[in-house]
Amino acid sequence: MCRWAAYSGPEIFLEEVVSRPEHSLISQSINAEEGKTDTNGDGFGMAWYGEKTEPGLFRDTYPAWSDPNLLNLAAHVKSHLFLAHVRASTGSATSRNNCHPFAYKNWSFMHNGMLGGYGGYRKAVDQMIPDELYEHRKGATDSEAAFLIALGNGLMDNPKLAMQNTLGTLEKLARASGEKPYMRFTAAFSDGKRLCAVRYASDKFAPTLYIRKLCKFGGHTLVSEPLEIGDSSWEEVPPNTFVCIQNGKVEMSEFSLA
Amino acid sequence: MCRWAAYSGPEIFLEEVVSRPEHSLISQSINAEEGKTDTNGDGFGMAWYGEKTEPGLFRDTYPAWSDPNLLNLAAHVKSHLFLAHVRASTGSATSRNNCHPFAYKNWSFMHNGMLGGYGGYRKAVDQMIPDELYEHRKGATDSEAAFLIALGNGLMDNPKLAMQNTLGTLEKLARASGEKPYMRFTAAFSDGKRLCAVRYASDKFAPTLYIRKLCKFGGHTLVSEPLEIGDSSWEEVPPNTFVCIQNGKVEMSEFSLA
Amino acid sequence: MCRWAAYSGPEIFLEEVVSRPEHSLISQSINAEEGKTDTNGDGFGMAWYGEKTEPGLFRDTYPAWSDPNLLNLAAHVKSHLFLAHVRASTGSATSRNNCHPFAYKNWSFMHNGMLGGYGGYRKAVDQMIPDELYEHRKGATDSEAAFLIALGNGLMDNPKLAMQNTLGTLEKLARASGEKPYMRFTAAFSDGKRLCAVRYASDKFAPTLYIRKLCKFGGHTLVSEPLEIGDSSWEEVPPNTFVCIQNGKVEMSEFSLA
Amino acid sequence: MCRWAAYSGPEIFLEEVVSRPEHSLISQSINAEEGKTDTNGDGFGMAWYGEKTEPGLFRDTYPAWSDPNLLNLAAHVKSHLFLAHVRASTGSATSRNNCHPFAYKNWSFMHNGMLGGYGGYRKAVDQMIPDELYEHRKGATDSEAAFLIALGNGLMDNPKLAMQNTLGTLEKLARASGEKPYMRFTAAFSDGKRLCAVRYASDKFAPTLYIRKLCKFGGHTLVSEPLEIGDSSWEEVPPNTFVCIQNGKVEMSEFSLA
Repeated sequence: MCRWAAYSGPEIFLEEVVSRPEHSLISQSINAEEGKTDTNGDGFGMAWYGEKTEPGLFRDTYPAWSDPNLLNLAAHVKSHLFLAHVRASTGSATSRNNCHPFAYKNWSFMHNGMLGGYGGYRKAVDQMIPDELYEHRKGATDSEAAFLIALGNGLMDNPKLAMQNTLGTLEKLARASGEKPYMRFTAAFSDGKRLCAVRYASDKFAPTLYIRKLCKFGGHTLVSEPLEIGDSSWEEVPPNTFVCIQNGKVEMSEFSLA
Repeated sequence: MCRWAAYSGPEIFLEEVVSRPEHSLISQSINAEEGKTDTNGDGFGMAWYGEKTEPGLFRDTYPAWSDPNLLNLAAHVKSHLFLAHVRASTGSATSRNNCHPFAYKNWSFMHNGMLGGYGGYRKAVDQMIPDELYEHRKGATDSEAAFLIALGNGLMDNPKLAMQNTLGTLEKLARASGEKPYMRFTAAFSDGKRLCAVRYASDKFAPTLYIRKLCKFGGHTLVSEPLEIGDSSWEEVPPNTFVCIQNGKVEMSEFSLA
Repeated sequence: MCRWAAYSGPEIFLEEVVSRPEHSLISQSINAEEGKTDTNGDGFGMAWYGEKTEPGLFRDTYPAWSDPNLLNLAAHVKSHLFLAHVRASTGSATSRNNCHPFAYKNWSFMHNGMLGGYGGYRKAVDQMIPDELYEHRKGATDSEAAFLIALGNGLMDNPKLAMQNTLGTLEKLARASGEKPYMRFTAAFSDGKRLCAVRYASDKFAPTLYIRKLCKFGGHTLVSEPLEIGDSSWEEVPPNTFVCIQNGKVEMSEFSLA
Repeated sequence: MCRWAAYSGPEIFLEEVVSRPEHSLISQSINAEEGKTDTNGDGFGMAWYGEKTEPGLFRDTYPAWSDPNLLNLAAHVKSHLFLAHVRASTGSATSRNNCHPFAYKNWSFMHNGMLGGYGGYRKAVDQMIPDELYEHRKGATDSEAAFLIALGNGLMDNPKLAMQNTLGTLEKLARASGEKPYMRFTAAFSDGKRLCAVRYASDKFAPTLYIRKLCKFGGHTLVSEPLEIGDSSWEEVPPNTFVCIQNGKVEMSEFSLA
């Protein structure tokens, strides 16, 4: 699996989440506590919002723990909303196009999880990507496909509904053609104004998700696992939950498939 | 576009084609004479046959002219049949999965050319890839797709017929949904025993192809452009031709779409 | 050789110099007009100043023309002072540590040129690097060594004098142990407040340097070759010149070796 | 630290050591049992001997466990004598030039260990590299320097004596200018005919070394840790030992510094 972290709030350097904390995302790339694999060395990526509507995007295939470009960028780029991800592949090759986050116009997306037996019906999944978005299908991950399908399902207008429909269709496909576990899906996505996330699984093992409402800079951080081990200020987001953070307000609601 | 070179005959070091000649493939990567672009620095690859049925495969995204691994491998690997390629992208990203040659079981394939307007109907092209081969669709190039579609069309049994059918279907799609030039296709492919090639275009500009029947090592070399500038021992393979080299014999026949 | 470009003035996106102009630095990486080689595909780098004293630094070994990270970063990072470089190796390997710019504390440095016969007396050059700076000697280029030696010669206090001494010693070494041309040195360096450059050679062929005093954003750009072909608003900086730009003012003075 | 494995005997595919065994070198790159770090993801390399006097050499900075080129090469290259290494950096950057094995003419060398406080006196170490070999100093590792210094000390004529002198000088330097542990040195080196190794440390913790005299293919394998967990056919090579394998014969002798 993978680990990710996202932030929304006053502008901060990306390093405050990506590299500086005791158990930062980079620390989790070599030594995750709660992930399926403790090493997440199959690439990394960051998407961050600033003046422009599209996010900046930086992704590479090296292990996060030793990449000087990643460390340097995190130390010198500031943003009010950003997504960062370290990858442990569940099958697709290590290639920049298979690294998260993915970006389309002003939207960015990253994912921790899997689609059970995906390799066996990827063709059907690709076919679900809207024609007009297919040129943006650059890699072969289930994650990138889910993002493009969600865009086709109206992610830009109603993120929650789009996700319900998307995961609904994908899980149906997994149940028909795939294998257990059919779906594990803990993802974050943003349009630069709101930061959303969903924690869902077809079984009891939805990949972890935590939120910290109080944060030294005044914002909110959503993470796969806490940035400090043993810190109780992190609140677990329950499975089957949709989260949306905008203008400092956090809304959580129950999430079930369409 | 790209440049490529292939060899069939007594075992030789790959460097005798890839790096040592005056205008070797590596020389062509920085300074091609006849290609659409004179720089072909978007990656390279080599597939070579030895003891095993599957070929060895080495591909990377660096410019060929400065990659020490490529130079070293070419100098130390010997083969009786190999394919080598340097890439100039016609749209798809620079990624190992988009570098040629592609390989499937004992078959390898590389291509110089394009499918006109491909980016606009790639989804339809992907759908033509047989279900059981889709997991081998790792990148996003028209070349990789053509290879997999050809495999589905019986490349393993009748390479020429499979190519006629494949290019026939692809050109029809290009004419319906794409743009001129609809198809430029000069490709080489092999199963480790025979080395085949096709030179075809929907217009008068089929990417170049030369063959040298006399070769200091006793084999045959098929190339995009001669390995020595001004050397008249290279014979041009006419457009609309299918070539097959096996056991030292060269067969050329007319090639037209199905 | 290489191509580079630097900017000092009101904050602008790096892309205004690196990728957007008609003959931008990225354009020059594949098609330089005035460089020794027209292809500069052996890596690239950018150093930019913002809130922190140290610059951000991003360097990679891929050709600049096809690297999505470079294009994306240039489009999303803003700075009031930055250096950008595309490399054509004069011998040292393609490795991130051999890419420019180099950085040390608040200083950054990049270079176009060479030290004649350097490979034959690199050991002596390395020995000129101050002991306390040796741990920052990460690659094997003459450029990185010159930077560290200049730091030891007081670059931080008096850049011009430090360069005179540094180039003086290096040229003496080249004349004693190397070969013609002994030195070609057109470099830019900065502490985040002032942007300096020197254009020097031991013969008549100092690598080119241009400055544009009028610039749509109100700042100054120093470049190896103009960012628009045929644009006469670019003024050539004569050989044997030291340039310093600070607070919008440009000072040029004669430069000769110590 | 790092893990390595070397083989000498009848020609075998490199994969029989590098990737196929239950606890192969690639398996050790993600999950070493006895190394200082359990992840060795800072690059890899292989040097193999064939027809030519110089070895083939392939090195890259990616984690070994996910690199398709490494897996493919190991499966398709055969050799009677080869060295393979996966790296966990002790300070020097992740760069191809800092990956092992290193090669010079017909010699190759790889190392597991460290020189205590090396970063603080690297300049002095670099100065010990013979002038005529300095152009081969491409990276910044203690390992590469030790190899070049050993070559200067007559490695080609008397490997054991050269190592005794080299480690003697280096340890003296570490004791004078460095810190504990002064030296940990378990290395393998070869000229294509004999495969040698040394296991040494200035304290009681010489990095592990095992040898297996019986091997399904009839050769000998020297490894940092056994290729099968719990397999008792592996014999530990004691600390302070010099090993030399030639023509199927193994000679071990006591090793102490000069």
